[in-house]
Amino acid sequence: MPVGTQATVKGLLPDQLQWVGSKMVLANTYHLALRPGEAEIATMGGLHSFMAWDGPILTDSGGFQAFSLSSRTKLTERGVAFRSHLDGRLLDLTPERAIQIQQDLGADVAMCLDHCPALPAEKAAIADATERTVRWARRCKDAHTRPDQALFGIVQGGAHEDLRGWCARNLIEIDFDGYAVGGVSVGESREEMRLALEASTHLLPADKPRYLMGVGRPQDILEAVSTGIDMFDCVMPTRNGRNATCFSDEGPVKLRNATNRGDSRPIEPGCDCPACLQFSRAYIRHLFVAGEMLGPILASIHNLAYLHRLMRRIREAITAGRFVQLRSEVLGALGP
Amino acid sequence: MPVGTQATVKGLLPDQLQWVGSKMVLANTYHLALRPGEAEIATMGGLHSFMAWDGPILTDSGGFQAFSLSSRTKLTERGVAFRSHLDGRLLDLTPERAIQIQQDLGADVAMCLDHCPALPAEKAAIADATERTVRWARRCKDAHTRPDQALFGIVQGGAHEDLRGWCARNLIEIDFDGYAVGGVSVGESREEMRLALEASTHLLPADKPRYLMGVGRPQDILEAVSTGIDMFDCVMPTRNGRNATCFSDEGPVKLRNATNRGDSRPIEPGCDCPACLQFSRAYIRHLFVAGEMLGPILASIHNLAYLHRLMRRIREAITAGRFVQLRSEVLGALGP
Repeated sequence: MPVGTQATVKGLLPDQLQWVGSKMVLANTYHLALRPGEAEIATMGGLHSFMAWDGPILTDSGGFQAFSLSSRTKLTERGVAFRSHLDGRLLDLTPERAIQIQQDLGADVAMCLDHCPALPAEKAAIADATERTVRWARRCKDAHTRPDQALFGIVQGGAHEDLRGWCARNLIEIDFDGYAVGGVSVGESREEMRLALEASTHLLPADKPRYLMGVGRPQDILEAVSTGIDMFDCVMPTRNGRNATCFSDEGPVKLRNATNRGDSRPIEPGCDCPACLQFSRAYIRHLFVAGEMLGPILASIHNLAYLHRLMRRIREAITAGRFVQLRSEVLGALGP
Repeated sequence: MPVGTQATVKGLLPDQLQWVGSKMVLANTYHLALRPGEAEIATMGGLHSFMAWDGPILTDSGGFQAFSLSSRTKLTERGVAFRSHLDGRLLDLTPERAIQIQQDLGADVAMCLDHCPALPAEKAAIADATERTVRWARRCKDAHTRPDQALFGIVQGGAHEDLRGWCARNLIEIDFDGYAVGGVSVGESREEMRLALEASTHLLPADKPRYLMGVGRPQDILEAVSTGIDMFDCVMPTRNGRNATCFSDEGPVKLRNATNRGDSRPIEPGCDCPACLQFSRAYIRHLFVAGEMLGPILASIHNLAYLHRLMRRIREAITAGRFVQLRSEVLGALGP
C-alpha cells in the first residue's frame, strides 16, 4: 500500500496510482482527524469519495503518530492524550475514539489502537505495552460497529518470542479480520525484525491477511514474505522518490548524481512504468536540479511501480514453487 | 500554450496536458540555455524527446528574461550581455546566438531576439528599441538555417500607432513564418494593450499565425482575438493554479477560502476536466491547506482546461458568426 497520509499519495492522481499497480492505499487517522477532521470527511461521503479512490483504503489508528509527532504525550490506561503538532490543541485518543474516527472516515480496514513503546526498552516495559495492546484491542473490538469495515489487531512484543506469542494468541482469541505485526519498522535492526516476524507471523491464521506495518525495503519485503506476511505499507517509495532516490534491481539509483547528465537510459532499463517508458535519467536529473515538481512525481511513480512489480513477481514465484530462488536472486543483486 | 519554462509544465505529465486539451507548449530559451544547457538537450535528441512532448513546441528568444531575471545586463547593438541568475556566469545573447540555441533545442517555432524596453519610457527610447528590434530580426532571419523550424518576428513599438505600424511593415518585408505582438503583457494597462493590438494586428498577414506574447487573462484573450490574434502563451493558468486561484465563468475561485469547507461542488460546475470530474472544492482546499502537491496540480489542470475550452468556444463562435455575442456574454459574467 502506498501511503496517502493526508488523503493523497503525494503528487499522484488516482489514475496514476492505478497505472503503477496500486490496489489499496493507506491513510493516516492522526493527520486526517486533525485536518480536515473526520466530521468533514464524513460529510463529504467518506474517504473514498473525498479522495476519489475506488479501491480499498486502510487507516491506521493514529496512536503511532500521537507518540511520534506530538509533544507532551501522556499515556494512561484510558488512552493517549497529546497536543496537536499543528496548533497545540489538546486531544485525546482512546481505543473507542480511534475506532469512531476510522468508522467516520469510512476506511475498508481499520486498525486497533496499540501501544508501541519507544525502543530500545527493558523487557518489562515491552511486556507492559504488549498487555495494554491486548486490553485496548478488546475495547476496539467492542467499540467497532461498522459491518462493512474490517478490523485488524496488532501484535506487539518487541523482539521477545514469548511476548509476541502471548500477544498473538490473545488477539486471535478476540478474533479479528486480519492481523498486523507492529513495532518492527521503528528503528529496529534487521535481525530484530527477523526475530519479531519469526515469533509472530507463523502463529497468525493463514486464511486471514497478515500485515507488516511500515516496511517497504525490497530486501525486508522478501524476508517478511518468507515468514508468511501478505501486506505492507511504507512511505519509502514516495519519500525516497521525493528525495531523488529510486529502487532498481541493481540497487538504488540516485537521480541527482552528475553521472546522470546526458544519460539517455530510463531510471531502470526494462521497467514499464510511465516514468521509465517516457523519460531519461538526464531529464529527471534536470527536473530535480531545477526544483521542478515533476521530478518527485516521476521518481515516486517508478518506485511504486517497482514495489508493485516485486510483489507480483513474489506472488507468481510462490504459485510456481520458486519463491526461494527469486528471493536469493533479488537479494544477491541488491545486497543485504 | 501552457508555459513549460524548464522543459516541464509544472507538475503535469505530457498525458495530462493532452487530456486538458493542450496542443502546443512554450519553453524558455533563457532557462534551458543556463540549465541543463542546449548542448545537453541536443544530445538527448532535442526538446521533444527530452520532455516527451510530441506536439509542437515554441521557444522564446531568451531576451526578455535576460532583462528581467539577470543583473548587470548590458545592451549593445551586438546583443545583450548579462549574468546568469543561477551562478553569476557572464553570458552573451546576440540575435545569432538566440537562433543557434533555439535550433539546438529543436523547437518547432523559434522567436527572434527583440528589444522590449522597460516601460513606461519616452517615445524616443521606444523608437530606438523598435528600430533595433527590426535590425535584430534581420540578423535572426539571416542566421536561421533549420528548414524544419518556423521563425516568428516580434512587433514592438509600445502604445504608439506609428512605431507599431513601422515595425510591422518592416518585419513583413523581411518575411517571417508568423508574427508576434510583443511588449504588451509587461505592466501595461488594458487600454495600452488595446492600443498596441489595434495598431499592430490588422497589419499582420491573416494567412500566418498572429501571436500575442505573455497574455492569458480570459478577458484579454477575448479582446485580443477581436483584433485578429490567434495564439497566446501565459503562466497564469499554472502560476495562479499553484496559488490556489482558479478561472471560472463566474470569476476567480479562491480555493483556500474557508467557504470551501464542506463544499462538495467541483471548482467549476459543468467543467469536464479531470480535476472537476473527480474532486470537490472541499478536498482541493484541504490539499492546499495541508501543503500537498496535488492541490497545485489539480488547480493547474482546471485552469488549463478552462482556457483551452475558452479558445474552443471562441473558434466555434467565429465559425458560427457569433463571436461578438460570446465575447459580450463572457465579459458580462467576468467583469472587465
